[in-house]
Amino acid sequence: MSLLEEYTRIREHTIAICAPLAIEDHVPQPADFVSPPKWHLAHSTWFFEQMILKRFQRDFQEYDPQFGYLFNSYYNHVGERTARVQRGHITRPTLQEVLAYRAHTDKCMLQLLRQAALAPDCTELIELGLHHEQQHQELLYYDLKYILGQQPLFPAYGGDTLRHKDRNAVAGWIDMPAGIYEIGWEGDGFSFDNERNRHKVYLQSYQISKALVTNAEYLSFIQDGGYSRFELWLDEGWAWVKENAAKCPLYWQQRGADWLIYGLDGLQPLEELSVLTHINYYEAQAFATWAGKRLPTEAEWEAASDQLPWGARWEWTGSAYLPYPGFKIAPGAVGEYNGKFMVNQMVLRGASVATPAGHARTTYRNFFHPHLQWQFAGIRLAT
Amino acid sequence: MSLLEEYTRIREHTIAICAPLAIEDHVPQPADFVSPPKWHLAHSTWFFEQMILKRFQRDFQEYDPQFGYLFNSYYNHVGERTARVQRGHITRPTLQEVLAYRAHTDKCMLQLLRQAALAPDCTELIELGLHHEQQHQELLYYDLKYILGQQPLFPAYGGDTLRHKDRNAVAGWIDMPAGIYEIGWEGDGFSFDNERNRHKVYLQSYQISKALVTNAEYLSFIQDGGYSRFELWLDEGWAWVKENAAKCPLYWQQRGADWLIYGLDGLQPLEELSVLTHINYYEAQAFATWAGKRLPTEAEWEAASDQLPWGARWEWTGSAYLPYPGFKIAPGAVGEYNGKFMVNQMVLRGASVATPAGHARTTYRNFFHPHLQWQFAGIRLAT
Amino acid sequence: MSLLEEYTRIREHTIAICAPLAIEDHVPQPADFVSPPKWHLAHSTWFFEQMILKRFQRDFQEYDPQFGYLFNSYYNHVGERTARVQRGHITRPTLQEVLAYRAHTDKCMLQLLRQAALAPDCTELIELGLHHEQQHQELLYYDLKYILGQQPLFPAYGGDTLRHKDRNAVAGWIDMPAGIYEIGWEGDGFSFDNERNRHKVYLQSYQISKALVTNAEYLSFIQDGGYSRFELWLDEGWAWVKENAAKCPLYWQQRGADWLIYGLDGLQPLEELSVLTHINYYEAQAFATWAGKRLPTEAEWEAASDQLPWGARWEWTGSAYLPYPGFKIAPGAVGEYNGKFMVNQMVLRGASVATPAGHARTTYRNFFHPHLQWQFAGIRLAT
Amino acid sequence: MSLLEEYTRIREHTIAICAPLAIEDHVPQPADFVSPPKWHLAHSTWFFEQMILKRFQRDFQEYDPQFGYLFNSYYNHVGERTARVQRGHITRPTLQEVLAYRAHTDKCMLQLLRQAALAPDCTELIELGLHHEQQHQELLYYDLKYILGQQPLFPAYGGDTLRHKDRNAVAGWIDMPAGIYEIGWEGDGFSFDNERNRHKVYLQSYQISKALVTNAEYLSFIQDGGYSRFELWLDEGWAWVKENAAKCPLYWQQRGADWLIYGLDGLQPLEELSVLTHINYYEAQAFATWAGKRLPTEAEWEAASDQLPWGARWEWTGSAYLPYPGFKIAPGAVGEYNGKFMVNQMVLRGASVATPAGHARTTYRNFFHPHLQWQFAGIRLAT
Repeated sequence: MSLLEEYTRIREHTIAICAPLAIEDHVPQPADFVSPPKWHLAHSTWFFEQMILKRFQRDFQEYDPQFGYLFNSYYNHVGERTARVQRGHITRPTLQEVLAYRAHTDKCMLQLLRQAALAPDCTELIELGLHHEQQHQELLYYDLKYILGQQPLFPAYGGDTLRHKDRNAVAGWIDMPAGIYEIGWEGDGFSFDNERNRHKVYLQSYQISKALVTNAEYLSFIQDGGYSRFELWLDEGWAWVKENAAKCPLYWQQRGADWLIYGLDGLQPLEELSVLTHINYYEAQAFATWAGKRLPTEAEWEAASDQLPWGARWEWTGSAYLPYPGFKIAPGAVGEYNGKFMVNQMVLRGASVATPAGHARTTYRNFFHPHLQWQFAGIRLAT
Repeated sequence: MSLLEEYTRIREHTIAICAPLAIEDHVPQPADFVSPPKWHLAHSTWFFEQMILKRFQRDFQEYDPQFGYLFNSYYNHVGERTARVQRGHITRPTLQEVLAYRAHTDKCMLQLLRQAALAPDCTELIELGLHHEQQHQELLYYDLKYILGQQPLFPAYGGDTLRHKDRNAVAGWIDMPAGIYEIGWEGDGFSFDNERNRHKVYLQSYQISKALVTNAEYLSFIQDGGYSRFELWLDEGWAWVKENAAKCPLYWQQRGADWLIYGLDGLQPLEELSVLTHINYYEAQAFATWAGKRLPTEAEWEAASDQLPWGARWEWTGSAYLPYPGFKIAPGAVGEYNGKFMVNQMVLRGASVATPAGHARTTYRNFFHPHLQWQFAGIRLAT
Repeated sequence: MSLLEEYTRIREHTIAICAPLAIEDHVPQPADFVSPPKWHLAHSTWFFEQMILKRFQRDFQEYDPQFGYLFNSYYNHVGERTARVQRGHITRPTLQEVLAYRAHTDKCMLQLLRQAALAPDCTELIELGLHHEQQHQELLYYDLKYILGQQPLFPAYGGDTLRHKDRNAVAGWIDMPAGIYEIGWEGDGFSFDNERNRHKVYLQSYQISKALVTNAEYLSFIQDGGYSRFELWLDEGWAWVKENAAKCPLYWQQRGADWLIYGLDGLQPLEELSVLTHINYYEAQAFATWAGKRLPTEAEWEAASDQLPWGARWEWTGSAYLPYPGFKIAPGAVGEYNGKFMVNQMVLRGASVATPAGHARTTYRNFFHPHLQWQFAGIRLAT
Repeated sequence: MSLLEEYTRIREHTIAICAPLAIEDHVPQPADFVSPPKWHLAHSTWFFEQMILKRFQRDFQEYDPQFGYLFNSYYNHVGERTARVQRGHITRPTLQEVLAYRAHTDKCMLQLLRQAALAPDCTELIELGLHHEQQHQELLYYDLKYILGQQPLFPAYGGDTLRHKDRNAVAGWIDMPAGIYEIGWEGDGFSFDNERNRHKVYLQSYQISKALVTNAEYLSFIQDGGYSRFELWLDEGWAWVKENAAKCPLYWQQRGADWLIYGLDGLQPLEELSVLTHINYYEAQAFATWAGKRLPTEAEWEAASDQLPWGARWEWTGSAYLPYPGFKIAPGAVGEYNGKFMVNQMVLRGASVATPAGHARTTYRNFFHPHLQWQFAGIRLAT
């Protein structure tokens, strides 16, 4: 597929994700970690305008100079930005105006993409922009689910329910011998800077599960007093349990003897055979301790990845998000992409039901703070 | 005007206030004290459904049983309610669905109003519901101005700019002799419980200004160091100044040597002859101290009210909001209207440019917490 | 008694209050509204040094220039001051060093007091300093009780238990006819600026109780569901109940079927006939509503005061703390004494078991924020 | 040295550290992460009483059953405990009473230690108790420095200034070849569970500095705009800078053109050749980025440790605090020692000027949250 076709396909997918939403659903920010869909639509466009068109399109005129301020996320190099927590208060530009901004920017980008010879650094930035947009597609699913799922009426989304692929196809354990393995990206295709360089690691022998933890298994943990036994939890995890009176994963609720779960198709009975999701690192770690197991490190995960079916849920690993040997932050705004987040976050591996086609790799390193539950994350055990 | 005509007129006015807004503008709650316009539209309807139709309409069916929970404001008697701070996260029902709820409820109300003989307590509650709706019309203006005026693009509202009546027509002072005066409501028309009973008060002799403080006068206070001289402020006022790095009223901003002000017609040069508004009690008190004067008490205001031109701005008084002698809280939900707020708030008298026609009286007691600025409030001095 | 004798008597009383405490008890600040006893000892000394000796003692040398910063409470005119919430972190000067500072200052003050003719404004300031010290003596009891009473070991104070005078000597109601009354201070003796000027008020007819509410009566309120019936509470009071899971007055605790109360003599069974104390304004107001009565206004209280036995507990009134007609803030630091607190506080009248001898007057206006419980405050009803 | 002699030596050292303090200095808790010296004295005693005497001393009577509640730090297995943030409000037992508790417990422990044959698990727990006490000796220095150093009078400690060993003796870089190394504890002596098991790691080739960063080098970073250049900082580090208006390490202050530093000997001119300390992980990481270097991982540090002079300052590494392969949490209260803290903290290696004699090992893993500055921590660079 040509870069132009890829551009068109990916940009249209973002629109398609938002299409089932009401205009109102594009506005709010019910938690600090959520961004309004309207903001995602604008910010992913802003990336192409600010990072590419301004630099590579001759005589380029910004669509609206104020949008640079409004739709910057965290790129300090590019300029001031609105406080992240105020994104849900910004009603203007309206959704319709944002869509016009997208359409205009796409027109300019297509002009650029039709040019005979794009400079390599331009091509590279466009690829980065598309992968950036795909990351926001994934976040869009997290955010729209949270926006709808926290409301008293529990409305269904109306689009793809992401219900496919939510059962384990295999079971059992993979035995991995001790020795030197290589992990990290090497090759021609796209990768983020945090996946490089490919390097050697020494692993002790270990076993890793082929299957992800299911709702039924997690329910056993709950019914065995999992949320009231401090000895299963990290100290900060136990503080999180008490502060939030946590009793179950996000989107679960108990009504009498029954468990319901909010999904993109609305409030439903809990399906026990489905793969568990929406637990945070603290919950993943406590479950693993309860099960007499542990979470794999990211190196263990990657070393075994060619034997693992994966892709149903991002999987929490026991690894903190830190630079690979030889990692360097690129100069300028692009360098703010990954490296500056390398503290206090845990690595997730795999991919989720919300990951757009073509965006997953075995070397991909996702990362979240340990208390966050709203991403589609699950548990694979190791020992 | 018949009660039916009054009902129709007032209910339509609420719709008219919201008409110039974009759908998106109906959603957010940029501060705790703000409610989304969509919520106002629904809550004022909820009042008629829950307080009147459920009781007086035979075989009445609630439009949607979940709306009772969603659109209750603070009536503990009526049931659980959503946390006030989460109103801006509720996107469903959508604006269109709320308007359908309004239309349906109006149809039911008109049926009721067309009945030959309404019980007196039913008539009384309908009148209360209409005055309640008018209070929300006033709040709608405060809230939509705040929603638009806090945004980086400073969009104009597009409806009534409320610019009429914002200059003083008279000047000078009224001399009031010491003696016994009567204040409070007495008569046949509608009044809120907090305006009753009419009772005697003794006032020392005083002078009260015919004119309200103007932007120019307040600018002199600013330029004389008003916001950096602690001795002019109440202790809590000075804490408010420091915590908020306050330098001017809400909606004012200094650009170089010029002052701009956000109005419903967008960002504009400050008009010096206009009546000052959007200051809180702390600012009103500090200005009065700086001017060597004080704020009138509510009794002083009311005793002089027949000699005062008023209506341009609610006016801060130096009186705390407390019950009149003999005040009793009515039983049931209607009793939660006023009495329970009688602590830590200051009384405002007069009416504002946003007060709907027919909603003002000289005995009317409005009240706000001392730090709030978003209401259209001004200053009249006394001595 | 001469001013010199008065000075000696009052200054020694402060030392006597602290004498039973351990050195450690002088240090902590377990809540924002509490000050460490060591700080009281130093601050009341600071007042004489900064306000009087620096001005009236020729060639006066400050004891330690840094103490001016450390022991200022809230007098912005005098200079910067340590953040109020950090008082409990200051261990130096030690208690012994503070006592040396007191002794040195007293020596200087006695020199001054022995001079043939003190200027009238000097005498006036010394009197103010002594009344200021007496206010801190009262606060010392509140604070040391809180410091000891919040600890797991519930240690007894070891000094005066303040248990005398805690029963009602009379019962019944006083009938007061409507009419013009005069309240406020007039005369030769000392008064605070907020008690002046004496002025006329008009009161409707009312009844006021001779007795204060007892523990037994308040227990009935608790047992009748007082803390779970929202309709009895002000809206902010109800928020306070829920946020603090309030179930009883400060220092009460239920153990099985029994009620214990922490007093200066340690943890004790609740004495039902004793006068209730340590309730805040919200609790006082809710109790009065439950009893079908109300709190008297401060004018009602003062007008009836010559017929009231009083002094056991400060009594919450239904009046907000506001200036009397004609009140003016004095220029300079002394003017910061009272006026700047005139917002968001309620007036208390009477005096408490902790009020030092000679410090009470019927015109005295005490004031606290509505949520505070740690002062010795009680309830007298009116109707 | 016999265990009895070791016990005596270590227990006396704790007393010696506190000896120069005033009684008042033992009380406050000026920040969440600080514990009052009085609490350290009691808690380290509590460990011997609860973990050892209760179990191994026949007919042992607790000194005071309430102390179990008061002086538990975070051992959920042992029972309820006072909220950590309230430690500074507890004045009773007094220092004298705590010292009596220590003396009594020591007498019982010495009786136990004199018994002919202690069970191996008893000996092991006593050793753990002594290492635990030594950790608190190190913390005591951090805490007493913070308690004194945050006060307006900047009092000197009066005891050991810890000024020895604060200059680099060597310079230059060590070249380490790529390959498999072994890290972790193996052997007969004492080690904490988090240092085990010894295991293989693969390291890429690297260089590690022989010298620690000095005050002069860090001053260059400051003067080069280090605290105002976002691109040098982790995102959370930059948020920390802005929220705290950070401009220099803890205990540094600029007065005009001069830099002062608070040390245990009071406020002093900054010595440029001294080894830097009191920076947090964010500052360490930003400095390393500015210098074009990075922090070593803990494996890199340990692999090179036999060639490193160390001991002047704990050194921040670039490793998150996570379990070694095969790490298991021990059952019961002892298991709460280390494992439950393995999230959101960074590893420090080496030892500090405050580390008691005999408490350091090259396999020792210390750990702190990234924002903390009050521990004696410094920077060693790698590349």
